[in-house]
Amino acid sequence: MTEKAIELFGPVADDLATLEAELRKEIETDPPEVAGPMADLFEAGGKRIRPALVLLAAMCGHYDLGRLTPAAMAVELTHAATLVHDDVIDRSAVRRGRPTVAARLGDAPAIVIGDHYFAKSYELAARTEAPEVVGILAKAVMEICAGEVRQQAIRHRYSTDITEYMGRIRAKTATLLEACCDIGALLGGLGTKQREALRIYGNRLGLAFQIADDVLDYSGSEGEVGKPIGHDIADGFATLPLMLAIEDGPTARRLKTILSDGHELMAEQARQVVEIVRASGAPRQATAVAQEYASLARGQLESIEQGEARDALEALTAYVVSRKL
Amino acid sequence: MTEKAIELFGPVADDLATLEAELRKEIETDPPEVAGPMADLFEAGGKRIRPALVLLAAMCGHYDLGRLTPAAMAVELTHAATLVHDDVIDRSAVRRGRPTVAARLGDAPAIVIGDHYFAKSYELAARTEAPEVVGILAKAVMEICAGEVRQQAIRHRYSTDITEYMGRIRAKTATLLEACCDIGALLGGLGTKQREALRIYGNRLGLAFQIADDVLDYSGSEGEVGKPIGHDIADGFATLPLMLAIEDGPTARRLKTILSDGHELMAEQARQVVEIVRASGAPRQATAVAQEYASLARGQLESIEQGEARDALEALTAYVVSRKL
Repeated sequence: MTEKAIELFGPVADDLATLEAELRKEIETDPPEVAGPMADLFEAGGKRIRPALVLLAAMCGHYDLGRLTPAAMAVELTHAATLVHDDVIDRSAVRRGRPTVAARLGDAPAIVIGDHYFAKSYELAARTEAPEVVGILAKAVMEICAGEVRQQAIRHRYSTDITEYMGRIRAKTATLLEACCDIGALLGGLGTKQREALRIYGNRLGLAFQIADDVLDYSGSEGEVGKPIGHDIADGFATLPLMLAIEDGPTARRLKTILSDGHELMAEQARQVVEIVRASGAPRQATAVAQEYASLARGQLESIEQGEARDALEALTAYVVSRKL
Repeated sequence: MTEKAIELFGPVADDLATLEAELRKEIETDPPEVAGPMADLFEAGGKRIRPALVLLAAMCGHYDLGRLTPAAMAVELTHAATLVHDDVIDRSAVRRGRPTVAARLGDAPAIVIGDHYFAKSYELAARTEAPEVVGILAKAVMEICAGEVRQQAIRHRYSTDITEYMGRIRAKTATLLEACCDIGALLGGLGTKQREALRIYGNRLGLAFQIADDVLDYSGSEGEVGKPIGHDIADGFATLPLMLAIEDGPTARRLKTILSDGHELMAEQARQVVEIVRASGAPRQATAVAQEYASLARGQLESIEQGEARDALEALTAYVVSRKL
C-alpha cells in the first residue's frame, strides 16, 4: 500500500498491511491457475477501501482483529471476483494498468477464477462464525448482479436518466461499501442505531466514490485511472457528467448530433463526446453532486462516538471526492 | 418430480416436493431477469439427487426439516449455478432438452445469473445458522473450479489417462455429492464416524453417477440424456468408455487413426469415435467400473443405523448406475 493509504486509513493502516500479507498467503494456498491471476490483480493496485471500512466500522465499537480479518479479506476478494467477471462481460482489455484476466487468459478461465474467489469470499465470511456476515455479503452480491442485468438492458441508451444512473451506481458500488460498514458494525457489536448510521454512511460514501470515478473517466488521464479515458461512453453507458452536459443547451445540441439511442459509438465519436463533456461545466457539477453525497455520509457519523476511527471515516469522505479531480 | 423419483427418494419424497415448491417461491422473489431463466432450468428437469442426499443423510440422525430446507435448496441452486456457467464455458447449446441460458440469452446474462445463484446458495446455507455449512459448500465449489481449470488444460488431449479422468469427475460431480452428504450428516448431528462414512458414500456415489453419465454419452439416445450424444468427445474430452476402448487392440488402432492430441475433431470424426466406442466392449466395462464404485458407496452404509433413510441411500447406489444403461 502507498503512503497515501497509510495516512488515509490512519488507525487501521498497520492492520491493513498485515491483512494484505495474509490475503496473499491465503491466495497462495489455491491452485496456481487461479491464484496467479488473482495475485497479479492485487499486485497491480487497488485502494483496499472495502477492508478498511470493515475495520474502521468495527473500531467504532469493539475491535477484535482475529474475527475481522476473514471478513475484511472476504469483502476485498468479493470485489476482486466481481471485477474479473465484469471484465468478461464488458470485454475490457485493461484494468489497473494491466491486461484484464479475460483479455490475457480468455473468458473461460476468467469465469472460473471469479467463481473460485466468490466461493473463497463466502468461506472466509463463514470463518467469522457469524452466519449474518455471509448473508450480508451474499445479498450485496445479488444486488450487484441485479444491477448488472439492468445495466446490460440500458447499454447504448444514452438518454437514460439520473434516477436510472443512481440505481445503477448504488448496485455497482454503494451496495458493497454499505455491506462492508454493516459487517464491521455487526462484528464490532454496535447498537442498532449506530449500525444503521454506518450502513447509510457506507452507502452515501459509495455513491460519492462512484460519481467521482465517473467524473475521472471524463476529466482524468489514463495514467491516473489505470484504464482508457472515456471507456464508459465507449462501452455504451451514459454517466452523470454526460447526463448533466445533456441538460445544458448548446452542449446538448452538439452531443445529440453524435448520440443516438441504440447505436454503438465509433471510437472517434466516443472521443468527441469526451471532448465536449470535458469542455463543459458538467464534470465540475458532477463533482459537486459527489461532494454532496460525501457530506451526507459525513452527517451519518454524528451518532458515532468521537475517536480516531470516526476521524478516519470522516477523512475518507473528503478523499473519495478529491482523487485527482 | 416423477413417480420414479418419489419411489427412489422414499422417506423424503414428500419433503422434496415441498422443498421444490419453496425453491420456486424463493426464486420468484428475485428480479425477473435472473429468476426467469433459473425457473426454466428447474422446470426442464433434473433429478434433485443433491437435496435428496442432504435430507437422507440427516435422516440417518436427527431430522429437522426447518434447518435442512435452506441447506437442501442451497446445494441444488449451487448445482444449477455451476451448470449455467459450464454452459458458457463449454459453449453448450442444449441442456435438459432445452437451449442453455448462454445460448438463449448470451454469455453476459448467463455469467450474472450464475453469480446471482451462487450468492443465493451461500445466503441460504447461512440461514442454517451453521457457518460450517457455508464452508463445506464453498470448499466444494472451489474444488469444482480447480477441476474446471485442469479440465480446460487437457481439452483435445485424447490420450489423457484414467487417473486424470478420476480426478476430473471427482471435482466435477463427486465433490458436491460428498458435500451434500456431509452437510446432511452435520445438520443431522451424526457422530464423527458416521459423518465420515456418509461423506465417503457421497463421494463414491458421485464417481459411480458420473461414470454412468459418461457411458450414456456413448450408449444412450439424445431423448434420454437431454443433450446430444457424443458431446464429450465433440467438446474435446476423453471419458472412461473411450479410455477403455483405447486399451483394446483392434479398436484402439481404429480410434488412433482419428484422434490426435491437440486437434479438434470434426463433427463427422466425433460421430465415428462414438460409433467405434459404442460397438466395442468399453461401455459395458465402464459400467462395471461404475457398479464397483456404487458397491463401495453401499459398503460405507454399514456403519449407519438400519432404517428407511439407509434403505433409500442404498437404493440410490443401484439407481445411479442403472439409468437406461
